[in-house]
Formats: sequence, structure tokens, C-alpha cells
Amino acid sequence: MKLDDSVRALVQGVVAAPQSFDPEGWMALVAAAPTPEMVASLRALKAELAEAFDDGLGRSPAPASRLEALRAELNRRGVTGFIVPRADEHQNEYTPRCAQRLRWITGFSGSAGAAVVRLDKAAVFVDGRYTLQAAAEVDANLFETRHLVDEPPSEWIARNFKKGERLAYDPWLHGSDEVATLLKACETAGASLVAVDDDPIDAVWRERAPSPISRVRVHAEHLTGKTSAAKLGEIGKILRDKACAATVLSNCDSVAWLLNIRGEDLPSTPFTLAYATVFADERVDLFIDARKLTSEVRAHFPKCVTVRPYADVGRAMEELGKSGGTVMIDQALTPAAIADRLQKGGAKLNRDGDPVLLPKAQKNEVEIQGARDAHVRDAAAMAGFLFWLSQRAPTGELDELTASAELLATRRRDQRFRDESFEAISGAGPNGAIVHYRSSPKTNRKLENPSIYLIDSGGQYEDGTTDVTRTVAIGTPTPEQRERFTRVLKGHIAIATARFPVGTTGSQLDALARLPLWEVGLDYDHGTGHGVGSYLSVHEGPQRISKVPNRIALKPGMIVSNEPGYYKANAYGIRIETLVVVTAQPKKPGEERDMLGFETLTLVPIDTTLVEPRLLSESERAYLNAYHARVRTVVTPLVEADVGAWLAKVTAPI
Amino acid sequence: MKLDDSVRALVQGVVAAPQSFDPEGWMALVAAAPTPEMVASLRALKAELAEAFDDGLGRSPAPASRLEALRAELNRRGVTGFIVPRADEHQNEYTPRCAQRLRWITGFSGSAGAAVVRLDKAAVFVDGRYTLQAAAEVDANLFETRHLVDEPPSEWIARNFKKGERLAYDPWLHGSDEVATLLKACETAGASLVAVDDDPIDAVWRERAPSPISRVRVHAEHLTGKTSAAKLGEIGKILRDKACAATVLSNCDSVAWLLNIRGEDLPSTPFTLAYATVFADERVDLFIDARKLTSEVRAHFPKCVTVRPYADVGRAMEELGKSGGTVMIDQALTPAAIADRLQKGGAKLNRDGDPVLLPKAQKNEVEIQGARDAHVRDAAAMAGFLFWLSQRAPTGELDELTASAELLATRRRDQRFRDESFEAISGAGPNGAIVHYRSSPKTNRKLENPSIYLIDSGGQYEDGTTDVTRTVAIGTPTPEQRERFTRVLKGHIAIATARFPVGTTGSQLDALARLPLWEVGLDYDHGTGHGVGSYLSVHEGPQRISKVPNRIALKPGMIVSNEPGYYKANAYGIRIETLVVVTAQPKKPGEERDMLGFETLTLVPIDTTLVEPRLLSESERAYLNAYHARVRTVVTPLVEADVGAWLAKVTAPI
Repeated sequence: MKLDDSVRALVQGVVAAPQSFDPEGWMALVAAAPTPEMVASLRALKAELAEAFDDGLGRSPAPASRLEALRAELNRRGVTGFIVPRADEHQNEYTPRCAQRLRWITGFSGSAGAAVVRLDKAAVFVDGRYTLQAAAEVDANLFETRHLVDEPPSEWIARNFKKGERLAYDPWLHGSDEVATLLKACETAGASLVAVDDDPIDAVWRERAPSPISRVRVHAEHLTGKTSAAKLGEIGKILRDKACAATVLSNCDSVAWLLNIRGEDLPSTPFTLAYATVFADERVDLFIDARKLTSEVRAHFPKCVTVRPYADVGRAMEELGKSGGTVMIDQALTPAAIADRLQKGGAKLNRDGDPVLLPKAQKNEVEIQGARDAHVRDAAAMAGFLFWLSQRAPTGELDELTASAELLATRRRDQRFRDESFEAISGAGPNGAIVHYRSSPKTNRKLENPSIYLIDSGGQYEDGTTDVTRTVAIGTPTPEQRERFTRVLKGHIAIATARFPVGTTGSQLDALARLPLWEVGLDYDHGTGHGVGSYLSVHEGPQRISKVPNRIALKPGMIVSNEPGYYKANAYGIRIETLVVVTAQPKKPGEERDMLGFETLTLVPIDTTLVEPRLLSESERAYLNAYHARVRTVVTPLVEADVGAWLAKVTAPI
Repeated sequence: MKLDDSVRALVQGVVAAPQSFDPEGWMALVAAAPTPEMVASLRALKAELAEAFDDGLGRSPAPASRLEALRAELNRRGVTGFIVPRADEHQNEYTPRCAQRLRWITGFSGSAGAAVVRLDKAAVFVDGRYTLQAAAEVDANLFETRHLVDEPPSEWIARNFKKGERLAYDPWLHGSDEVATLLKACETAGASLVAVDDDPIDAVWRERAPSPISRVRVHAEHLTGKTSAAKLGEIGKILRDKACAATVLSNCDSVAWLLNIRGEDLPSTPFTLAYATVFADERVDLFIDARKLTSEVRAHFPKCVTVRPYADVGRAMEELGKSGGTVMIDQALTPAAIADRLQKGGAKLNRDGDPVLLPKAQKNEVEIQGARDAHVRDAAAMAGFLFWLSQRAPTGELDELTASAELLATRRRDQRFRDESFEAISGAGPNGAIVHYRSSPKTNRKLENPSIYLIDSGGQYEDGTTDVTRTVAIGTPTPEQRERFTRVLKGHIAIATARFPVGTTGSQLDALARLPLWEVGLDYDHGTGHGVGSYLSVHEGPQRISKVPNRIALKPGMIVSNEPGYYKANAYGIRIETLVVVTAQPKKPGEERDMLGFETLTLVPIDTTLVEPRLLSESERAYLNAYHARVRTVVTPLVEADVGAWLAKVTAPI
């Protein structure tokens, strides 16, 4: 078999994608039924290319030569500076390696940040979570470090640019709101803001990987509960009702949901990189690298779907603009490049946002049943892991990385497991108090006896996405730890048992989870709950439970996390997280309002050695015991006898 | 004494103002020390003019001739239609009679609404509260009635105007946000939107009263706790920090607070009609009818205050615009006429809002002590009234109007009482279930035995503003009434006793008041609390306790109401309202956050015959008993012996 250049290019894309749950599934992109000889050749080619793979992202701090090269490029283009966001072209939470420009130019690998590079100086912006990490990863001789929130890039720009200078930005990496902020900053400085057609970093990033290539798979109707044609019907109706000619979807999860497809271009989020224009007559232009599509997937698409090259999206926006209708976009998330081209073409913009978000958030019965099923199997894996932990942790020899590796290995045994839904937070002792902690060989701690261990993790299963946090006592907890754990638990139960009228938002419920902590002058500095997708992102809008104002009413079928916590800096962290789904409540006699509530999906024991029963009301205690009885009943049949025996013990009523 | 035309005009303004607490105080506007002869002449003149007074607002439905005259005027001006809002030139809650254009043209006298008059048809827009009232007050042959919220004027305009037609509006009566909505509606219809320089209703309203004239009084420093100069210093600093050259205050209460003055141009709100431009260097241009100012008031103003004619404000905005700086305005509340003139002149606009709102909302120690004092005296009046009610109501012969008249008479006995803070809501039986009910001879009901009676009322005292609702059982309440009252009380206590961290908004607390109702499928359709002024409006922003998202953190010194309720349509209404002030809480050992809480100002017994003690927790019962003990201790010394004896009985522990 002759492996021509096109195959080589495809395999280079495969190497640039994350490892798949089906390691050779990508070969179907080369041939529908590869011969054993072909399989061997492709395997060898992939090994060869993987061996040679170097996209330059492994080096931190980034070498000074990169900054030099970028400055030469900026100088050549006649601009004074360039802003490098952390975002990719879809505002993805997980970004492809080829879009990790901030990491390449600075060395900083955190999940939020930005840099501004001027010809004479440069700054990197990170938030409080990443101060230490940025100090370790970024060369302080090249970049000054600023606080992303307290002194954001816009302020730095307003102060550091001078009259007549020119700041460039890549309009594919910023939404229109962000561009407006940059424009204001430049105006304050008397500088001008210049959109660039091609990213100057890409011009100088020689070893930059190609865009990832993973096989797109049909997400079958027995998992989605609704055909793509039916979903298109819903979105088309929204567009017609709002007198819009079309909408442009730039969120990869919106495209995945609408067309019932999943991909593996990114870690933890089963997306394929794509844009889609959806017209009011329910036609779709799908902008995607067609090499990712098998004939099976193409056959699955409704006839109204036209596959177009990914790179055509810019030109297509100008065409769409010229057709003159109103196009619905998301002011914050749609790349400014899209909004600009639409307007340049002549379109009116309706800025009501991505019309897929709400229908996607309200899971149908099939998706909810999938979530229940996935949670039961995930609970069995968690029980196995917690049993293992109970046996091994008291020695004090386990560490954060061995523990999270064991959990991942346990989850992987499920045939329907696809990926972690995020990189697990495995926090021993004081590391548990770092809300967004990620363990690394440098920070890895032993699970000491006595101590508290916090493990926040989740799985992507083909039938659902999970996310669970449990806090476990190793040895005997202190009275303070028990008191604070119990207060977190009381808040958790308040959300789990809340009944609220139709129309209530997550913002209205948030305080219920905090009240028991407020009583004693404590709180936690994160939201109480985020939306969760159906084998999509573990962080999904538009609903959430948060003190940040939000006008999105909770509706039946929405899945959210319920995760109050308490963090004592340099000591320990507590979080209790389950996923819940919003359900309609039957109306009892005398009730006047249509009420909603939550069904808890997660079925993992809560460590009762951390509970101080005197602090629980009778109904809270009854809730905890009923929850544990349910865990025991549902999970025991799925686990080995020793795990079952342990489960019986840890779920005993208190 | 010769009463010349100018005196006659002044007295006409006095007649157009509400009755003053000091009925002849206005004479100081004619002469600092009028002779007895002058007093007699002025008294006679006022009586004569009052007798002749007719501004046409008494007639509903409005005669068809008015609509005819307006249409002729519109036709003459070459426009197709005109929108008539309920608002006046300051977005006041209570409006002067000369600004009640909606009422004059339609006959509708409610507190919210609008009309759109086309040459060929007309519509009036009212909300659910006013459907019945509008039917009674508006001639259905002249106006179609539409729902203000479900089918707002903008939608009606979009549907009923045609390409090329012209809709006129008075830019003094709409904020810029509202104008943007109208513009969008006109664009949809293909029509154009035209600002008019002078209101066409004023051109045809022949019997229209002059603008009210009431005497402006200095609000002394022992009541305000801060000089006007000090307040100007604060506002000037805000302007300088935001690089603004000036702000234009169009809220009459902002002007009153800033200059430490009060007036009586409007009912229930002690304002004088005025605009003010405040410059970054702390100079003030005060636009006011100078006839309202005594020499004492002029002497009170800091030197940096320049008094200019009220009618000059439009021209002054163009001048201010030409000076070229940035001017801070409120996008929603500042009249569009002001924003337009500023922009036309060349000013940049900063739309951060009225900079007086936040400083005004955070009462200082003197204002808080004033509020406490006013509430104690108000509580004595309320105790007297509730005692009288307990004696008289069981006969079943009292009615809503006699009851509220008795309450007002009781309050008036206090020398520092100035006005009702709003027209009392006196709701017997089913009328209590109408949230914004106002009793009238047509709706007046007897207080039957048995029934529940709801009385929501308040006073303007020179040292503070009160607002209190009590729900009283006449005869024996039903078990359902007791259960629901107790749930409302539980929510009320949850707010009264809340402890919450600095930074918490009222939106976050709102649900606490609803939880006990949600438990049994009930709720109420209004906010839980509104801000309250210091001898200013009883409804004052920017803080509130409401499920509507709000980003304003509660801060020490802010006064808000705590008023959950429950309303059973056609049966009865329950509301328990007290005012509370936000206070910093001392930090106890082990507490990590700076916490806030509420001090309850209102000291009026809660009817324990409506309380079902079994539904109260131990701490709720303790709260109620402690509250009643405080009421008894503080109020008893101020009331007659029989009231005191009654107070002892109704505040006994349960």
C-alpha cells in the first residue's frame, strides 16, 4: 500500500488529536474496511509521526526567540502590538493544540489568561488561581505578570499604548463584546485597533501542529431521543418566529447536539471542530474538515445539510450577509470575525444568542434516562474506587496522582466510558483548599493519616456525562472539620430538596446552599452549580446556580451540579457535589403554583464520619439516610462482594 | 394691599400643589413677614382660586372633544400619532397635576400606563392591576384597551403604523432606553419617530393647571447628618474619578438629598420639582422656579450653587454639551431630551447612572437615628390605631375608608408628621388580596366579622419615612388563614434574622422569604423589599430584595422593607411588612467573612391570633417573642393607659 501525502497529512491530524477511546477507529477515515496490511502500515505511520511530533508547546518558559520572531512579524505588518487571548476560534473550554497560542508564546498553560505583546514590552495576565503557576512557567524577563481581573488587558492597553500606535487582534478569537472593550481601551489611549486577517503567531509558529483530526461518529437516536431533523425543525421555528433568516453556530457543542454527532478533536469534550449556518427553512451549511466524515456519517445527515470546507466559513459569512436578512448571533461568544463579515455583507444582527442553547439544556426523557444509567455505572466505579481508597489510604502512602489514576482506570472498565469529563481534581490536605487545583508531579502530595482528601472527577459515557465530588476523611477528622463538612452538607441538602415555582432561576436558589455557612461567618467563592451536557461538555449553559444574576429559569430536564464547599486555606478543602435534574413536581391538594424540584442523579456515598449528626435537622438526617439507602440498593448489585460489604457499612443510617 | 398678577400666578401654583402640612406656610413666598392684613388677603385669594380650580382631571371617561382636539393638533403638525406616557419630566412616582396628560386624555387615573393616539384610532395600555379600573374610567368608543406588559405600546406601534407614517413623542417624558424601543418599533413598521419640542397635549389642554408651587424648606443638618457642601464633595469626587465633567440630576429626590432641601410639590414625596447640573469642581446649576425659594433657603445654599430658571434646563444642556466633556447620565431615567441635547452639543455620555443614588441609599448615623425615632412615634400611632380597631372592628360596622381615615388622623397628631408616605392600602376581606388595592367609595367594603383586614400605610416625618403593613384577624381566623399567615411570618423572620457576607445583593436573599410558602406550593407575585428614603420617597433605589436580578450589594445604612405576603384571590390577603436597616455584624471567633444583617426599625405588634405556633421553629418563636417584648418596652411609654394594656396583651409571649 502506498501511503500518499494526503494520508500522511490526515495521520498528522490524528496525531494532533487526543488519544481516542477506540485507538484505531480513525482508520475508517482512510478506508471503510482497511486490509490487515493497511492497518499495519497506518499503525506504523502513526507511530512514526507521533514519535516526531513536536508542536513546541512542551517548553516552558517559552524561548525568547519566539517573542523575537513575533515582534519581527508585528513590525513587518506595521503594528505596535498584538493581543493573544487564551481562546480558540470557537471559545472552547478545551482548545486544540494548534490554537494554544498563549501557551506557545508565553509558556503559560493555565485554563484562563491572555498576553499583550508590544514591540518594546509584553505582559501576561492570569487570575489568582494561576499566580504561582505563571511564575513557574513564564520567563519574567520577557513578560510582566498582571492580574487578569484586577488589571485586565484593556486597562494595561489604555495605560501602555500611546497616541497613534496600533494594536492588532485576531477577530476569530474574540467575541464582539470583547472587541468593544478593546476598542474603548485603544480610544482612551488614542491608539487604533486593527483586525488582522491571519494570526501573526501562526505565521511564526513553525512547528505548529495541524488542526486535530478525529473520526466523527453518529450519536444514535436511542441516545439522543430526537432526530437531527426534529431538532432542525425546532431551531427553524425559533428563527422564523424571530423573523431571522439564519443563525450561525460557532459553539462546537451546539453543532454536535443539532446534528447528533460526536467527535474527539478535544480532550474531555466530545466535539468536532465545526461551524454551522442554520437557515430559517431548516437547511444547514456545515463547515468542517470533510476528512473527519465517514460515509456512514454523511448518510446520517438529513438531506438539507450541505458539507462545506471549514476554511470557507469566512467567505460564507459575507455571502450570507449579502442575502440581506437578519442573522441571529451571540454577542459574547460568536467570533467578531463572523459578526463583522455578516454586517459588512449587509446583514442585520439579532443578538439574542445561540438558539440551540435552551433546547439543548432541556434534556428529553431518553437523555435523562441515559444520564440515570450512566450515573449508576459511574457510581459503581466510584464505589470501587472509594473502597480501594478506604483500604489503602490509612497507610499514608497513597498520593494524589496514584489515587486519580486508580479512579480513571476503574472508570475505564465500563465499555461505554469514552473519556474523563475533565481532568480530575485530586487534592490531599491543603491542596484540597485550592478550588481549581490540578495535581502534577511537582505539587503531588501524599494522602496523610489523618487528613481530608477531596476528589472531584467525572466521566464522559456515551449515554451521559457525570461530575461528582466527594470529600473523604483519612483517619479521624477534627471537630472543626466535621462541623464545617456538616454545614456544607446542610447546604447541599437544601438544594437537593428544594421545591420552587416554575420561573425560578438558579440565582434565586444559590443562597440556600450558603445559609448554614453564613450562620457562622463562612462562605465559598465559587458558584453552587453549573449546567451539564448529555455526552457533551460537563460545563454547559445557559442555566446555573450562582449568585451572579442570571435570568434563565430552571426548566424540567435541565441538569445542574449541586456543589457547595468550604475551603480553609493551607489546611483542607470540602466540597460535596452531585448532579441533579430539574423535574416537575406533582401538585398536592391546596397547592396553587406549578412547582419544580430536583432528582439526584449521582449515587455515591457521602462520608458519614465527617457528619456531626447534632447539626442536622430531623428532615436533613432523613434525607441523608434515604439517599444512602438508595445508593446501597442501586449500586450493590453492580459491584464485587467486598465493595458491597463496604457499601453496606458506609451507607448505614446515622 | 394690592395683589398683583405675579402674586395671583403664584397662588395659582399653590392651589395646584397638594395641601401642605403647614397650610399657610406658602405665604412666606410672598413676604418674609406678612402683615395680618396681607395674610387675610392671601387667604381669600387662595380660597377664591381654589374654588375656581379645574384642571379637567376630574372627568372620567375623558370627553371625546379632548381626543378630537389632540388629533387636530397632530394633523396640524403633520404627524400620524403621538405616544402619551404616564411619566412626568422627572420620572416621578407621584406626578404633578399639570403632567397628568395620560389621565387628561383618557380619563385613566392609575399609577402606570400609556396611550398611543393615531389620527384614526387610539389605544390605552394598562397592566393586570388596572383592567377593571380602566374599563370604568376610559371610554371604550375612543380607546381600545391593551395589556401594558403582554402587548406593550411598542408592539402595538409596530403592528399599527404603516410605512411612511410619523409617530411623535415628547422627549422630556421618556428615557433614552424607552426611545430606543420606540425607534425599533417604528423601524419595524417602516414609520419614523419624531421628537416634539413642545407637548401637543399641552397645546390643547386649555384648563391645564400651572406647575405646582410649594415652599422649599431647608432640611436641617441635625436631620441630614451631612452638609450639602460635604455631599457635593462626594459627588464631585465620583465625577473626577470617572473623568466626567458633570452630571445632570433629573431625579427630584437626588436634588433634594444633595442640597438638603425638601418641598411639597407632589403628594407623599417631599420633593421640589428641579433639575441640577453638578460639575466636577462641585459647582451646581439648580434649575427651579425661583418663586419657591425664600431668602432663608437661598442663604442655606453653598456659594457654588447657582439658581437658574427651570425652563432654562434645555438650553443649558446644549451649552454643557458644547463644553465638550463627558457627562454622566442615567440611561433609563434621564429624559431623552437631556441626553439628546448634550450629544447634540458635543458631549460624550457616561451612562453609569445617577451618582447620587448610592450615597443617598447608605444612610449615615444621624439619618438612621432619625429613622429609629420616627419609627418609634409611628409605632405609637399604629398601636393607637390597632387598639381602636380591636375595639370597633368586631361590630362589623367599620369600613376601609373610615379605618384608613382614622389611621391618618392618628398619625397627624405627631408634630413632626408631614404627609402620608403613600396612599394607604386598606383592604377588607377579598380586597386585601388585591396587591395594589386603593379603596374608593365605589369599592369600599365593611370590615366583616369574621374576616382578615390588611392595612399597608406609612408616614413622612421630618426625621424619617415609615412603611408598615399589618394583617389583622377580625373575629376567629380559619385554620387555613392561620397556616398561611404563619408561613408568611416564617419568611419575614428569615429575612429579619438573615446574616450574609459583605457583597450580597437583595436578589440573593429574596428566596429566603418565599421558602416556607414554596414548601406547600404557594408564592406571592411581588418583590420582598424596596429601598426607603430618609424623609424622601418611600420607594428608593438602587437596592431592593427581589427575584429580579440586581447587582447592587446591600451596604450598611441601606433601609429596605421586608414584606412577604400571600394572596388568595377573592378571599383574603396577608402581608407582614417592617422596615429594616442593613448593619455590620460583629465578627465572632472562628468567623472568616465580614458579615451583615438587619436591624428592624418598625415596632408594631404582629397579630398572634393568626399565628399557628406548631409551624414555628424554636428560634422563630423566640424571635417573635423578643420582637414583641421590644415593641412593648419601647412603645408603652408613648401611649395612653388603655392602649398600653392592650399592647401588653397582644405582645404576650406565645
